[in-house]
Amino acid sequence: MLNPRLYPELRRATSPDALFRHVEALFPILRSITGEGIRQTLDYISERTREFITVDIPSGTPVLDWNIPDEWNVKAATIRTCNGDIVVDLAASNLHILQYSVPFHGRVSKEVLFGHLFSLPEQPDLIPYKTSYYIRNWGFCVSENQKASLTDPEYDIDIDASLEPGHLTYGEVLIAGRSDEEIFFSVHCCHPSLANDNLSSIAIAIELIRTLQATDHLHFSYRFVFVPGTIGAIAWLAKNIGNTQKIRNGLVLSCLGDKGGLTYKKSRNEDASTNRYLEWLIEKEPDASVREFEPYGYDERQYCSPGFNLPVGCLMRSPNGMFPEYHTSADNLDFVQPVALLKSYNFIARFISMLENDFYPVSRYPFGEPQLGRRGLYPLPAAPPDITEDDADWPDQMSILWVLNLSDGHHSLFDMARQSGKSLQTIILATGILEKADLLDIHQFPAAV
Amino acid sequence: MLNPRLYPELRRATSPDALFRHVEALFPILRSITGEGIRQTLDYISERTREFITVDIPSGTPVLDWNIPDEWNVKAATIRTCNGDIVVDLAASNLHILQYSVPFHGRVSKEVLFGHLFSLPEQPDLIPYKTSYYIRNWGFCVSENQKASLTDPEYDIDIDASLEPGHLTYGEVLIAGRSDEEIFFSVHCCHPSLANDNLSSIAIAIELIRTLQATDHLHFSYRFVFVPGTIGAIAWLAKNIGNTQKIRNGLVLSCLGDKGGLTYKKSRNEDASTNRYLEWLIEKEPDASVREFEPYGYDERQYCSPGFNLPVGCLMRSPNGMFPEYHTSADNLDFVQPVALLKSYNFIARFISMLENDFYPVSRYPFGEPQLGRRGLYPLPAAPPDITEDDADWPDQMSILWVLNLSDGHHSLFDMARQSGKSLQTIILATGILEKADLLDIHQFPAAV
Amino acid sequence: MLNPRLYPELRRATSPDALFRHVEALFPILRSITGEGIRQTLDYISERTREFITVDIPSGTPVLDWNIPDEWNVKAATIRTCNGDIVVDLAASNLHILQYSVPFHGRVSKEVLFGHLFSLPEQPDLIPYKTSYYIRNWGFCVSENQKASLTDPEYDIDIDASLEPGHLTYGEVLIAGRSDEEIFFSVHCCHPSLANDNLSSIAIAIELIRTLQATDHLHFSYRFVFVPGTIGAIAWLAKNIGNTQKIRNGLVLSCLGDKGGLTYKKSRNEDASTNRYLEWLIEKEPDASVREFEPYGYDERQYCSPGFNLPVGCLMRSPNGMFPEYHTSADNLDFVQPVALLKSYNFIARFISMLENDFYPVSRYPFGEPQLGRRGLYPLPAAPPDITEDDADWPDQMSILWVLNLSDGHHSLFDMARQSGKSLQTIILATGILEKADLLDIHQFPAAV
Repeated sequence: MLNPRLYPELRRATSPDALFRHVEALFPILRSITGEGIRQTLDYISERTREFITVDIPSGTPVLDWNIPDEWNVKAATIRTCNGDIVVDLAASNLHILQYSVPFHGRVSKEVLFGHLFSLPEQPDLIPYKTSYYIRNWGFCVSENQKASLTDPEYDIDIDASLEPGHLTYGEVLIAGRSDEEIFFSVHCCHPSLANDNLSSIAIAIELIRTLQATDHLHFSYRFVFVPGTIGAIAWLAKNIGNTQKIRNGLVLSCLGDKGGLTYKKSRNEDASTNRYLEWLIEKEPDASVREFEPYGYDERQYCSPGFNLPVGCLMRSPNGMFPEYHTSADNLDFVQPVALLKSYNFIARFISMLENDFYPVSRYPFGEPQLGRRGLYPLPAAPPDITEDDADWPDQMSILWVLNLSDGHHSLFDMARQSGKSLQTIILATGILEKADLLDIHQFPAAV
Repeated sequence: MLNPRLYPELRRATSPDALFRHVEALFPILRSITGEGIRQTLDYISERTREFITVDIPSGTPVLDWNIPDEWNVKAATIRTCNGDIVVDLAASNLHILQYSVPFHGRVSKEVLFGHLFSLPEQPDLIPYKTSYYIRNWGFCVSENQKASLTDPEYDIDIDASLEPGHLTYGEVLIAGRSDEEIFFSVHCCHPSLANDNLSSIAIAIELIRTLQATDHLHFSYRFVFVPGTIGAIAWLAKNIGNTQKIRNGLVLSCLGDKGGLTYKKSRNEDASTNRYLEWLIEKEPDASVREFEPYGYDERQYCSPGFNLPVGCLMRSPNGMFPEYHTSADNLDFVQPVALLKSYNFIARFISMLENDFYPVSRYPFGEPQLGRRGLYPLPAAPPDITEDDADWPDQMSILWVLNLSDGHHSLFDMARQSGKSLQTIILATGILEKADLLDIHQFPAAV
Repeated sequence: MLNPRLYPELRRATSPDALFRHVEALFPILRSITGEGIRQTLDYISERTREFITVDIPSGTPVLDWNIPDEWNVKAATIRTCNGDIVVDLAASNLHILQYSVPFHGRVSKEVLFGHLFSLPEQPDLIPYKTSYYIRNWGFCVSENQKASLTDPEYDIDIDASLEPGHLTYGEVLIAGRSDEEIFFSVHCCHPSLANDNLSSIAIAIELIRTLQATDHLHFSYRFVFVPGTIGAIAWLAKNIGNTQKIRNGLVLSCLGDKGGLTYKKSRNEDASTNRYLEWLIEKEPDASVREFEPYGYDERQYCSPGFNLPVGCLMRSPNGMFPEYHTSADNLDFVQPVALLKSYNFIARFISMLENDFYPVSRYPFGEPQLGRRGLYPLPAAPPDITEDDADWPDQMSILWVLNLSDGHHSLFDMARQSGKSLQTIILATGILEKADLLDIHQFPAAV
């Protein structure tokens, strides 16, 4: 039942380059919460994984307290001088268009135009990312410098967009394990050319899915959902309301490619094991931090609404709104670090390995210490080659004593690691040694009290 | 059921001057645990409030483990030289007489007299306040300087006092709310001319009673008792032993007019909600502190005796025994600050507003976030004039999200304020907005687990 | 039921000299886990106490997961040059022989000899203490300097030892109190001439047994076991498996004679009252520390194995492995401080006095404070001579108020000391005063909730 090789396997299965290539490939697509861009993105994921499904929901469908909005697509958008010179062009940056801008064609005064421009006076070189999903408006996002260069009295506007009944589309994949209990990952995929927010997490999720699909003998089932933010999570919940009770642990993945330390934002349910696991894992990471739950941020807002109250936290590097590149044209391919992508991937791999190995050993010789010498366990044998990538994880005599002492059916391997100060991989390996020596049995659930 | 206007109403109802005038008016009265002085004091309160009752208990009546003592009154007390020059005169300071001094008339040697004088060698200008309720004695309290000036070999003593069967008198008022549960305030009123200890609290209690009696729709009932210290609290408990279970929260009020920071001394019952409420409220006050319960101090000693163990703490500014003016002639009208009286009053008003609004909202749309935009709550409307004295209390979008997220029937408004870091008034107002938008219902008690 | 005189009695019953004489007397004996040395040691204890029993278990007997090993005895052991000069001689130090060395006679090359020598390169003057109980080997322990002086090409070895079927022997004594519940002390007594580890604890245990046997009216029963380390504790547990449930609190005593501060290593069962008691007692000691349980150290490893999980911690001064003299010839009679022995003894005496007095008073007058004045308790009477060795322990008025206030049947005297900040002896004495005044009753167990 133990799977000490899982973490090394997961870790070896990808690379900084493999991760970064997904970010590069997806960056040029103009995504929004509906439309062709998000469908192209889901197709890209589907081509690289197995059994990936997409779900289309027609505009106007009620989902929880909301309704699916009209579908938005945009082909072109320009601002031209009266001479016909193009001064702002969607072709130059996917961020130039106000998301969900209605179509508009006509000549307007500079004053009227400026009422439809969004810029960042404090960051004059950057184009902001802005949306107006539920208040109908047209508009452009430009740099402050661009805006300053617009000195003509009038401009011609052409927004070749459509906003009309269509569909909202999300994607998901379930990797079935022995248990029906699910480990849930949610990734928002509605942002246009922003690399960290959230192509970083899409890339990591693709690689995790590929690796887990190539792995035998998973204990838990793993579900990855790729949804447009807010309305997509609400739509997914509306369609899966009866199945959410299967979710044992979950993470919203977001902004996992910048060079900041890891951040874990706790699930609303303070007692969820997700919090216990992540708080312990993350305290070993450099510059990492834990944040209390608050009802703002990413789709954990929906998963942690009081009716669901799911054991879902949020994993990030730099948190939303806390880095200057956030929601601007500076969140580009230069901003995402291939090595940071790998570190985030490896951290999630450690979390998965923890879940897959967090069982309850029960000693067969609980009265006094068993005599280790006659079983060849004192002194301990040397590490077999290839069992772990880090020799420091091979158990010492003390790890063996810890596992034996705590094998009372009330301490999981995670509890043992926490109490002993040993790494979880060490405890997994020590438990494996003792199981092989017939000194303990491994149970899935704790003993009755 | 919510009453967001309660705190502004309570706060507007009094002033530093109104509070201080009560202290001035009551200062000249010679009070003790029995006698005319305490009855005059209770009459003063009765004239300024409604439905105030006084209770007279005859001397000798058993009350719990005690007996009501004889009633003490004193008309005059002097020390004269053999020439007839008055050197100490009760008419000059109510503190000059040892409380419960027996009558005495006669010429005594300086040595005998000195055995009956109480002074403060470390504070030579001040007259101490001393009592001898249960050991019969006669005596005077004088300043160390006065004592030093007594150099004659003999003096004539006249103490025109009576100590004989009579009554102990206490007063109380109940302001009935919708609920039988009582919020209890106890004020000791047995000290002669000491302004902070405890005319300050009598003044605040009078103003609180007047304001609460002018307020409609109170949820809880409010009981204020004015008792002589120790024996009065014991007498009240003896008469009300069956009713003490109605007390939901309580405070002994004492020394609330000096310029020190607020002090909350916890109730003996560590888990009492009184402690939770007061600890949270007081940590926002400048220079405030919390003290653990100890079985010494004011009448919380009796309310927190093990048989009662009532949820009653003690609210003070400078604690008893911790300021040099304590129990001396320096605890006079100059020592009490009108502004400090108001600050103490306002703090108690905030406590009352907290209690009256600490209900359990339950969201009608607990699955996912409700869509606020179509209900005109995104963005939020502006603050109506006059809802709160402090514009900073008007909710922001985040406060709305907090209340919605925690409206699960297990979080009271107080819990929400504590968890969100928002002010309680903000949470009250946000809850009111959401209730008006039919997004939640308000319950008095938490949902079943 | 209270026994306020117990601590003064225990404290007066011994002296630094009395304690140190046992260490001196036992130091020359060559002890091991079996053999004549440990039997001589147990005889010494038996001669100085009453009802001391020894238990012999034949070699080969299964005990839990182990088997009793063969008995080891050694008469002489030398290393000689080929000229016949003795260069290492067991007669010079009991540490020179590798414990459980097999017999050996013959000439060996320097290289072969060096493979059987144990020394401490970092501490070149000291002889180490080494064992090889379960891997058959012969060997000597020598100082690094001695080893360096061995420059001949060959040496003659004579180890006149026997390792053959015999017995393992341990000793124990039970001092019966009114209750069957046992307070358990375990002392390892298998080390040869090491003074702190563990003659210090043997000496303290002898004096504790003598004093407790001379004391009337013990509430609990006290069991002291003297066992060879690991195998002896396992043997005792195997013989007493059904009786271990009687153990209410226990301590492994070890290394109690050096000048380091006291150390309490917690029992595995975090909630055991032993931990609560010891943590509170030890925080009053200079330079003291508390260590979390770990499954390494002394025989608490066996008592705290998961099947037993006994409420047994370990009391030490400097912990095993944490002082440079540990397991070397420097752990000699100079290393043990007579005054440190007494301080350790007194600490255990305080622990015993705490256990014997930790009852639950219940006030007869729980409603309000009882009137102390008419019972002669306000002011308090003076301390009778001889009730306590430390006048500072005599209660003040505040101690009386604390005991009355907490006498609700849910606070033991220990709880009262902890909450009030008074010493336990003060609380014991105050409780005694109040019991004599008929103000409270003393119960053995807490009141039902």
